[in-house]
Amino acid sequence: MLTDLEEAMDSLIDVYHKYSLKKGNYHSVYKDDLKRLLETECPHYTKEKDADTWFNELDVNRDGAINFEEFLILVIKVGLEAHRKSHQV
Amino acid sequence: MLTDLEEAMDSLIDVYHKYSLKKGNYHSVYKDDLKRLLETECPHYTKEKDADTWFNELDVNRDGAINFEEFLILVIKVGLEAHRKSHQV
Repeated sequence: MLTDLEEAMDSLIDVYHKYSLKKGNYHSVYKDDLKRLLETECPHYTKEKDADTWFNELDVNRDGAINFEEFLILVIKVGLEAHRKSHQV
Repeated sequence: MLTDLEEAMDSLIDVYHKYSLKKGNYHSVYKDDLKRLLETECPHYTKEKDADTWFNELDVNRDGAINFEEFLILVIKVGLEAHRKSHQV
């Protein structure tokens, strides 16, 4: 049986794979995939910057795709914002 | 309605609060709380280091407690490991 943390982790991995498995390289979220990911998964948290800006910010190794490690940068940014919001209600 | 990513985020926040709200300062996971968190939430991923070592690694600002930002370091480490494992099956 999975713990709560493990389930949350698995959900994060599933979200990443929803976009990374779409085409070509197994672990590459390309610019158009990222645009879809941002619009579908976290529109409220990421709308202040456009998808191109996000892509450039996340593609740390400049290989033209977002790998899982780079996706976690987005998770942190959205997570911090979500945590802040959770205390504003 | 929450997206899949937002739900995963909320679960992470809930896991953190399960331990941070236990006593005193609202956003402090103290050493004994962290020990319980590690043992309860991610024993398979963190057993190679003891709770003291984890605590010292995560308490970046050396204030004697793990805040949400510092908790996210653990999330990343466990997340990377969980992602690796998801491809070994």
